[in-house]
Amino acid sequence: MSYNLLKGKKGIIFGALDENSIAWKTAERIHEEGGTFVLTNAPVAMRLGQIKDLAAKTGSEIIPADATSEEDLDNLVAKSMEILGGKIDFVLHAIGMSINVRKGRSYTDEKYDFTTKGWDVSALSFHKVLQSLYKADAMREWGSIVALTYMAAQRVFPDYNDMADNKAYLESVARSFGYFFGKEKNVRVNTISQSPTPTTAGQGVKGFDGFISYAEKMSPLGNATALECADYTVTLFSDLTRKVTMQNLFHDGGFSNTGVSQEVIERFTE
Amino acid sequence: MSYNLLKGKKGIIFGALDENSIAWKTAERIHEEGGTFVLTNAPVAMRLGQIKDLAAKTGSEIIPADATSEEDLDNLVAKSMEILGGKIDFVLHAIGMSINVRKGRSYTDEKYDFTTKGWDVSALSFHKVLQSLYKADAMREWGSIVALTYMAAQRVFPDYNDMADNKAYLESVARSFGYFFGKEKNVRVNTISQSPTPTTAGQGVKGFDGFISYAEKMSPLGNATALECADYTVTLFSDLTRKVTMQNLFHDGGFSNTGVSQEVIERFTE
Amino acid sequence: MSYNLLKGKKGIIFGALDENSIAWKTAERIHEEGGTFVLTNAPVAMRLGQIKDLAAKTGSEIIPADATSEEDLDNLVAKSMEILGGKIDFVLHAIGMSINVRKGRSYTDEKYDFTTKGWDVSALSFHKVLQSLYKADAMREWGSIVALTYMAAQRVFPDYNDMADNKAYLESVARSFGYFFGKEKNVRVNTISQSPTPTTAGQGVKGFDGFISYAEKMSPLGNATALECADYTVTLFSDLTRKVTMQNLFHDGGFSNTGVSQEVIERFTE
Amino acid sequence: MSYNLLKGKKGIIFGALDENSIAWKTAERIHEEGGTFVLTNAPVAMRLGQIKDLAAKTGSEIIPADATSEEDLDNLVAKSMEILGGKIDFVLHAIGMSINVRKGRSYTDEKYDFTTKGWDVSALSFHKVLQSLYKADAMREWGSIVALTYMAAQRVFPDYNDMADNKAYLESVARSFGYFFGKEKNVRVNTISQSPTPTTAGQGVKGFDGFISYAEKMSPLGNATALECADYTVTLFSDLTRKVTMQNLFHDGGFSNTGVSQEVIERFTE
Repeated sequence: MSYNLLKGKKGIIFGALDENSIAWKTAERIHEEGGTFVLTNAPVAMRLGQIKDLAAKTGSEIIPADATSEEDLDNLVAKSMEILGGKIDFVLHAIGMSINVRKGRSYTDEKYDFTTKGWDVSALSFHKVLQSLYKADAMREWGSIVALTYMAAQRVFPDYNDMADNKAYLESVARSFGYFFGKEKNVRVNTISQSPTPTTAGQGVKGFDGFISYAEKMSPLGNATALECADYTVTLFSDLTRKVTMQNLFHDGGFSNTGVSQEVIERFTE
Repeated sequence: MSYNLLKGKKGIIFGALDENSIAWKTAERIHEEGGTFVLTNAPVAMRLGQIKDLAAKTGSEIIPADATSEEDLDNLVAKSMEILGGKIDFVLHAIGMSINVRKGRSYTDEKYDFTTKGWDVSALSFHKVLQSLYKADAMREWGSIVALTYMAAQRVFPDYNDMADNKAYLESVARSFGYFFGKEKNVRVNTISQSPTPTTAGQGVKGFDGFISYAEKMSPLGNATALECADYTVTLFSDLTRKVTMQNLFHDGGFSNTGVSQEVIERFTE
Repeated sequence: MSYNLLKGKKGIIFGALDENSIAWKTAERIHEEGGTFVLTNAPVAMRLGQIKDLAAKTGSEIIPADATSEEDLDNLVAKSMEILGGKIDFVLHAIGMSINVRKGRSYTDEKYDFTTKGWDVSALSFHKVLQSLYKADAMREWGSIVALTYMAAQRVFPDYNDMADNKAYLESVARSFGYFFGKEKNVRVNTISQSPTPTTAGQGVKGFDGFISYAEKMSPLGNATALECADYTVTLFSDLTRKVTMQNLFHDGGFSNTGVSQEVIERFTE
Repeated sequence: MSYNLLKGKKGIIFGALDENSIAWKTAERIHEEGGTFVLTNAPVAMRLGQIKDLAAKTGSEIIPADATSEEDLDNLVAKSMEILGGKIDFVLHAIGMSINVRKGRSYTDEKYDFTTKGWDVSALSFHKVLQSLYKADAMREWGSIVALTYMAAQRVFPDYNDMADNKAYLESVARSFGYFFGKEKNVRVNTISQSPTPTTAGQGVKGFDGFISYAEKMSPLGNATALECADYTVTLFSDLTRKVTMQNLFHDGGFSNTGVSQEVIERFTE
């Protein structure tokens, strides 16, 4: 399937770790739709992942960058424009990681060094990416920037831990920076609040399988897959959504506006 | 328990059907807090209810009024000021009824005569009450008006049926009229979005017991009771909340911002 | 510009009055994207409009239908499937009208016959359309239904009058029916909350020009035009947004999440 | 005015800097309502402030604590229980500071050392306070915790800078920790989203006077004052709001749900 929706568009994709990643699927779909891009990831994540296969498949170059490092990001932005031959049309930020989660610390027993590091990687990194792009005047007019988020920013999912607070910060950055990017550059900034997705990263979260199953039963259309998220992101990068900005867009089969579903309530009525 | 929070305040209370009603509990608490009021209900509801006991207990008069009738409401407002000896400080609107629900019609098989009647009783009646008060200039400055609502106005609870849409309309009326009542009269208008409550009216809804149990498990503090709702309403009628207006206030033990609770998710992980 | 995004898709478009209408622009864009459709409007609106030109241009048939009449809607749905040769993939509801506004009645002085008629036309009509489609099992799996709305459903714009409450009801219907359409038919239902748009209908609202100018200054990307709304609707009718449902989607250049803009605040600091 | 709403209740109040502070007014009102408390502030802020006068007036002790230091907070909690003779009923967190703002760095030119420090002081400090209280099991059942916030967490106010993102994080912490405090301790956690208030801290923000004037004209009841915020906080600390938790409560004269007011639109229609 291809509509040439992104023909001639150039971008940067953060966070394609392996073929389960939403960013991986998005890169593939963008490629199909005629877009070209640079792939980037933290040096440490790249050692774990198979990003070279994706680069080969999509004819992309890889520029390692620690998304918490201003220097790395400035370099990434400059080199990307060089490689792609001009300004940037689209950016996907798909980065998140909680050390408290990894280390098994509950939300009421955070270690604040972990919290700060997780916030820097998962939330502040988005501001850093935006500021790098903004200062370098790297975005083409009517360009589009998307970050992935999760509904824990609005409602509590106990095991999601400090990632909830990080996502709330990230979504606020999208709004705040979206204002300035809109006014000054006619560039839009949005977040997609995606269904829980069985990515390699997501699988680290305790009780994730049960949660996927619960979300499936609560969503009238079922959970959105990584591929469907890629499709949706393509529309947000296209020229058909130019006036959508500073929004948090739920892509979740209806979960967010379902108070309870018939299947769920039935487990409480027997 | 009494703090004299409403000493000298005068009001009108709609919807006290029997001792399970939130409006009934609220009337009792307002009485304890030093407020005086007129009780009102639809003539037909009054025949079913025991409102006379409540009137006797609280030293109140009863004025029957069909809340869909402008004439009845104008009469109610005029007589209430006469009886209470001045302008009105507080009004509680606790009225709601879906004929589609009563007749067992599902949301996808509405009979529109029923829908229109239910909307008139449950939603438009609030506008009618407000317009009657506004035109008669019946509210004292810094008075407070509250209507009860339910979170189905934001998220779908399948069995709540067309009451969801009615509550969305009601909450919009609170905002819209709250603007004019604020600007012109310094009067506030809010809605309280209450936990599912085992009132006589609520019990008509299919699967209500299972739902109460589910909501209890989803709410970190448990469901809010009718008495607790009465307490909360007292604070909104007091002079301590003068700048809270046009808000929909969740009074639900935290349900509204809980994505999933540990107890609920456990039923999906076995 | 065409991507063939809607190739082979069949639909029904309500509310194309004249070339300023959002529905008109949407019909044109859908035609360009390969979709075919039936145009419909109220008989009375059709006498005023130039819908025949649009029909000719897009090779469409016109079926008059009063959107408050179940009979007309059932007929419309049946005939549309006949004409289009199968089930429906997309539906656009772009209908709204307040008699209180037309007659110059302010929000605090509503005439309730007008209110009821306006609610029936603007809000309940969407339920009626959905119920007609649902009962006839007329929607193809993964079809998409969109209604146009305005942010007055969330926040007060004093001159928007009772249309605010109608839009709140309409958005609730999208969620409520979206649940059942999702569960039972894998069909999505959403609303687009559009910038104020200088359509022929919109121009009836008092102070509309000043409001357009204010919204333009408050929106980091400027107001969204009718054509841009058509583009956005095309994405929601495409196969790239299959898991977006029960959402109210702001298409407004960022207005909805801008607390104040620099240009607006400057008028208060001189 | 006193209702004895907080008779016998014990608490901790952060952030009373001088008599313009909301926390200062709240301390006075709590004292009038029969509550007792410990006052705390950062050592550096205390040198600038007149907190001793407040302590004398309300019969309170002062415990200096840097709210970013776990050690200081643990000490504060332990000493407070000692001084007050038991568990804590209420806590007010009124702390916020952006070094980027102070240093005149715009949102698109943040210095990330400043950002991190500001986040630690303004947002993470709330988690640290909650975690200290939680681990020490210091809150009495049905206790109440409130943090002050601002609507920039939802919508962009360009000069509010990185405080917007900090407040979004803070509000998320209230929800997240509110879940655990609710489940485990029957304690509620909420934020109050207050009108812009001419405190000593607020006055540092660029264009603050113009903004106050704009907000006044946008709020149907006018801006909420510091004293009114104190009154509202008293209700949230009282036993009358036991089932309100995990909420962000707008206390703003209706600003948050006003799309535009007549006075504001008039400046755009001349």
